[in-house]
Amino acid sequence: MTDEEIFAEHLGGKLGVSVTRPLSDSRALSIAYTPGVAKVSRAIAEDRALARKYTWTSRLVAVVSDGTAVLGLGDIGAAAALPVMEGKAALFKTFGGLDSIPLVLETTDVDEIIETLVRLRPSFGAVNLEDISAPRCFELEERLIEALDIPVFHDDQHGTAIVLLAALRNADKVLGKDIADQRVVIAGAGAAGIACARILLAAGVGDVTLLDSRGIIHPGRAGLNPVKERMAEVTNRAGLRGGPVEALRGADVFVGLSAGTVPEELVASMAPGSIVFALSNPDPEIHPEVARRHAAIVATGRSDFPNQINNVLAFPGIFRGALDVGARRITERMKLAAADAIAAVAEDDLGPDRIVPSPLDPRVAPEVAAAVARAAREDGVA
Amino acid sequence: MTDEEIFAEHLGGKLGVSVTRPLSDSRALSIAYTPGVAKVSRAIAEDRALARKYTWTSRLVAVVSDGTAVLGLGDIGAAAALPVMEGKAALFKTFGGLDSIPLVLETTDVDEIIETLVRLRPSFGAVNLEDISAPRCFELEERLIEALDIPVFHDDQHGTAIVLLAALRNADKVLGKDIADQRVVIAGAGAAGIACARILLAAGVGDVTLLDSRGIIHPGRAGLNPVKERMAEVTNRAGLRGGPVEALRGADVFVGLSAGTVPEELVASMAPGSIVFALSNPDPEIHPEVARRHAAIVATGRSDFPNQINNVLAFPGIFRGALDVGARRITERMKLAAADAIAAVAEDDLGPDRIVPSPLDPRVAPEVAAAVARAAREDGVA
Repeated sequence: MTDEEIFAEHLGGKLGVSVTRPLSDSRALSIAYTPGVAKVSRAIAEDRALARKYTWTSRLVAVVSDGTAVLGLGDIGAAAALPVMEGKAALFKTFGGLDSIPLVLETTDVDEIIETLVRLRPSFGAVNLEDISAPRCFELEERLIEALDIPVFHDDQHGTAIVLLAALRNADKVLGKDIADQRVVIAGAGAAGIACARILLAAGVGDVTLLDSRGIIHPGRAGLNPVKERMAEVTNRAGLRGGPVEALRGADVFVGLSAGTVPEELVASMAPGSIVFALSNPDPEIHPEVARRHAAIVATGRSDFPNQINNVLAFPGIFRGALDVGARRITERMKLAAADAIAAVAEDDLGPDRIVPSPLDPRVAPEVAAAVARAAREDGVA
Repeated sequence: MTDEEIFAEHLGGKLGVSVTRPLSDSRALSIAYTPGVAKVSRAIAEDRALARKYTWTSRLVAVVSDGTAVLGLGDIGAAAALPVMEGKAALFKTFGGLDSIPLVLETTDVDEIIETLVRLRPSFGAVNLEDISAPRCFELEERLIEALDIPVFHDDQHGTAIVLLAALRNADKVLGKDIADQRVVIAGAGAAGIACARILLAAGVGDVTLLDSRGIIHPGRAGLNPVKERMAEVTNRAGLRGGPVEALRGADVFVGLSAGTVPEELVASMAPGSIVFALSNPDPEIHPEVARRHAAIVATGRSDFPNQINNVLAFPGIFRGALDVGARRITERMKLAAADAIAAVAEDDLGPDRIVPSPLDPRVAPEVAAAVARAAREDGVA
């Protein structure tokens, strides 16, 4: 994959708008535009709920970023984030059959982002937040969920968390382990790290040890932001102090989301039959072949090693399911259902190197969508 | 065209997002998304101008409305305006080969609309304002042009004005008249009426008499809004007072943009060889066959009579031309060039019933685009 090829494939961008019914004659024009469209507009003015039926919003996701945490590049700004958002929209289309429009914002103020999306609310059916830096992303997502009556989902948090949970469930199945007995170390307390900790706790994991660049997060530590403070209260039941050395010693699962590195000897210090998810991209925290010398199961975020933990397994089906039933929000049950559905697709052919389906597996999104739709109904949000 | 058919053709909306290059394998994924896309994002972060080259913004128009003046329906709100904006986007695609996304705003505050679009600025390449009520639309457009470095164009104003000028030029050619000798009566001082007056003055028309619901606009009239006050100073050189009767007596051209009616005897009172453009939709101010008893040339906004004055002759080519050369704004010269180009397409086959090309004529948009692009370069805005 040369630079030349990458840039050539980006010329003119990656998206287009298509017309669902051709405007080939004046009759078609009179239906889709004046005077015909006036009937449809009048109907929606009388019953706002009809917008879902007669506009594209029922399958339209706004992919929203302020460009503050783009891939591994950090705060590169709205314009530079746009190619990533176009790519995300292409994934929504390819895997979820959903339309989406990238909206990149030249403000990083949480109030202003919320205000902007509230004003634009009737333009789309759901919001996928993307590449927004922590801890702002937590407050933004929480407040946006309250402000809008449509699904809002920060994929960097929950997409990663959902696929991670699916992978861990299947790894445990392969190894005959129980999640309730496991201590999971998560390196990285950004958007993905916090969300992974939360979903694992919701799924009944034994214990989570959360590490940031300053070491293990625990209630006594000074200078924690409010989000980490809350996490300190519900994680680290083992009462550990220190850094990666102390965290990994005897741990059952390692989840790397830190863009850092983990020395081989620390993986060796984990409990027997350990699981290593070295998810940083493009460079995993430890080379999977090295990790495999000590761990029973290893996964990365990369397509060139077995067990690729990739958000694309989750978000297309999650939005598809939520939009299909007109869900007003995405609940915890819907996220857990998505994880179960992803895990179930891989179950037929489970093995240490086959704990998750391939990101290109066409069975995944429909299964996830169906499970999410069911869960939405069970939760009464659809 | 039954209601049933109209609603059936609107099921699920009229737009979709398409992917320009299929994401069929993991290699394509790695180019369009991580890790490949990071190279493109980094390049744009270093040189913002590259966004035009490597994203879809170079051909992307935001179709923006607050739903305050939708077709003849008035202030029906953002959600109800969306089907019209989808239709507009479909026209942009069909006639201009441009992508566009409808953005409907749940605010009617001019400051807030500007603020919203400024925040979203890197998301698109141009702004088409649509169905925004007068006189707010004038201030909004003016200030947005200053706030953004991309083309901003309120189609209800300028689209109508440009096609009207093209039609008048060709009508004058058919009748052997000179625009400088003509007095034009414009009924309706909303978005379209004001813009038509302005473009006719810029094109050197002899005189314009502007009518609103209270009669002829003149400097002495009380209660004029600032826009009408300014128009009072540059129109009505004849110094007329009164209403439609006084305005039309001896006039050369009538332009109806009022959703009102004009009695036959008033058309009969116009100068010999008069021109009547009864543009209200769906009901022209006077039936074209009745007008034709007195006027030498008659045009309407409808497709079922000769000489359809339709904005679609202008906006796709105007935006296409402006975007093709990366114009920072749409100048008066670009608008006049568009009118000339539209008129020129009809010239081959000119006649009293053929003063403008058909809205479906595929030659129009490319000719308009080329003329607009040339004018943009001449004006130094490209």
